[in-house]
Amino acid sequence: MKALIYRGPGELALEERPHPELYAATDAIVKVTKTTICGTDLHILKGDVPTCAPGRILGHEGVGIVEQVGTGVTAFMPGDPVLISCISSCGKCAACRKGMYSHCETGGWILGNRIDGTQAEYVRIPHADTSLYRIPPNADEEALVMLSDILPTGFECGVLNGKVQPGNTVAIVGAGPIGLAALLTAQFYSPAQLIVIDRDTSRLEVARRFGASATIDPDQTDPLKEIQRLTGGAGVDTAIEAVGVPATFQLCEEIVAAGGVIANVGVHGVKADLHLEKLWDRNIAITTRLVDTASTPMLLKTVQAGKLDPLKLITHRFKLDEALEAYRTFGQAAATQALKVIITP
Amino acid sequence: MKALIYRGPGELALEERPHPELYAATDAIVKVTKTTICGTDLHILKGDVPTCAPGRILGHEGVGIVEQVGTGVTAFMPGDPVLISCISSCGKCAACRKGMYSHCETGGWILGNRIDGTQAEYVRIPHADTSLYRIPPNADEEALVMLSDILPTGFECGVLNGKVQPGNTVAIVGAGPIGLAALLTAQFYSPAQLIVIDRDTSRLEVARRFGASATIDPDQTDPLKEIQRLTGGAGVDTAIEAVGVPATFQLCEEIVAAGGVIANVGVHGVKADLHLEKLWDRNIAITTRLVDTASTPMLLKTVQAGKLDPLKLITHRFKLDEALEAYRTFGQAAATQALKVIITP
Repeated sequence: MKALIYRGPGELALEERPHPELYAATDAIVKVTKTTICGTDLHILKGDVPTCAPGRILGHEGVGIVEQVGTGVTAFMPGDPVLISCISSCGKCAACRKGMYSHCETGGWILGNRIDGTQAEYVRIPHADTSLYRIPPNADEEALVMLSDILPTGFECGVLNGKVQPGNTVAIVGAGPIGLAALLTAQFYSPAQLIVIDRDTSRLEVARRFGASATIDPDQTDPLKEIQRLTGGAGVDTAIEAVGVPATFQLCEEIVAAGGVIANVGVHGVKADLHLEKLWDRNIAITTRLVDTASTPMLLKTVQAGKLDPLKLITHRFKLDEALEAYRTFGQAAATQALKVIITP
Repeated sequence: MKALIYRGPGELALEERPHPELYAATDAIVKVTKTTICGTDLHILKGDVPTCAPGRILGHEGVGIVEQVGTGVTAFMPGDPVLISCISSCGKCAACRKGMYSHCETGGWILGNRIDGTQAEYVRIPHADTSLYRIPPNADEEALVMLSDILPTGFECGVLNGKVQPGNTVAIVGAGPIGLAALLTAQFYSPAQLIVIDRDTSRLEVARRFGASATIDPDQTDPLKEIQRLTGGAGVDTAIEAVGVPATFQLCEEIVAAGGVIANVGVHGVKADLHLEKLWDRNIAITTRLVDTASTPMLLKTVQAGKLDPLKLITHRFKLDEALEAYRTFGQAAATQALKVIITP
């Protein structure tokens, strides 16, 4: 089969690989019909993810058709259309029993990281019963690819952890796909203000189209002063960090109101300064989270009910043969205005 | 009247001052019968609290008898025995209506800071109806002085924010009066392990006496390794930071389990390193809080019911005339083994 391989920092290759086989009774083999590229794949490509060894098939998002199941799989049969979660979870360990699937003892984020992933014609899915979701009839499969990772990530790590509530004031720092996923799902809770901060003016335009009540380009306007102006000096109830660098995290420390939450979503490579000398008495919370995808069934229902349109996030489409071009397009988002790119094997 | 005055960094004096007067209709004048010294008073004395100007009467804890009330006070009358909260709150502003009394627009921590405090024969209490608590008959007034600040602080900022639950594993970093207050009140929730970390061996002995299941002296045992050993490698569900320096906060970052909480209680003078490169995917929360004293009525009931014995925390007793000696005793706790000192005007 054809597969996209991480060959080491900066190197990708489209190669022929053997068709995956069942290892454990709880595995399923899925024929991938649609997949996509994540910001995390670009981190791997930079050499930032040591758990991902050269030779790995990349990708942790996608939809497909079950081709084969192990003897222990009871929830799926060959022919079932499925959504693949970026998080594999056994459903049995202490972390899974708490709903913290991201920290499953034999799962978590392993697809396209510790084991071969979805940017291929076929993929082996461990713990299939608790790592796949049945796709309802008449669902748009491209839309559902957005439910493998970015929508649950924006929702769980940003909106739920950030305690977005009706009437609250929310700032989202970073208007990449994950920030926009937080923007779309924050609207489930009817916040009074949804302020998006980014340096990319085209992404700010997208944010306004997606429901932002205000946008701030920090190269044009001082974000701290503008947030003060927009919130009557109080700051925001929720600051969602969706970039992953110290400067944006520290901006969140400055704009959060007393009693507010900083919900970190960004993947950080270095430490940040935590200004406890200013924050110790501010009654704030800072949260971190690797997505558990516990919200995937709920998000599926919102898509089916027309409350959430993930197709908005898709800007480009490629065949698997064009995967290297897809990576270039996604990696140069400022030039290509790419949000999410769909790859069809 | 006699009062203890902050004269500038390092300088305290016992002076004669005029009897306080009612300013606002919502004020009460309270005759102080018992007061105490807080770690924050030592911070003021070091010059670390710029809001507290030289000339200020110190103290934000105490019990007394209402002497006089303004025309707007309806809940108290002269002669009522009262507990003074360290937090003054109007009960009417947006912060108060959310129960976040610490951020009251015209109150918060102002006693012995922005306005004259309780280390005197009399004190003016603003917003008396919502800043005083009636003392039940037969209550021990020395015990109740511990409810002005340290018990609600340990409980709200440490135990409640730290989400201490039955069966959980809790580490308290710092066995000063606030850390010990967290230790006592954490036991309301029956955690499985209550580990206390401090360099002062006599305070560790107190911690064991107060219910710690294990104690760690970091000069003797590597706290990270010991916590790993005690928790089967998982780390603690709740890490309560009760010191207020970067090293102890960073220890909390290292010992917290995936899915756990770091509840900051310490008053910090400088920033700390937040290792987001290790914590971004650990599903943790970090909380900060200036005590709201929202739990004071509940804590009063636990004292009355014998579930909490604040007298344990009192090691020394002085007359107001001996206040300078009381400060020396409290300030040199390693030598004097002082926890809380009671001062009687």
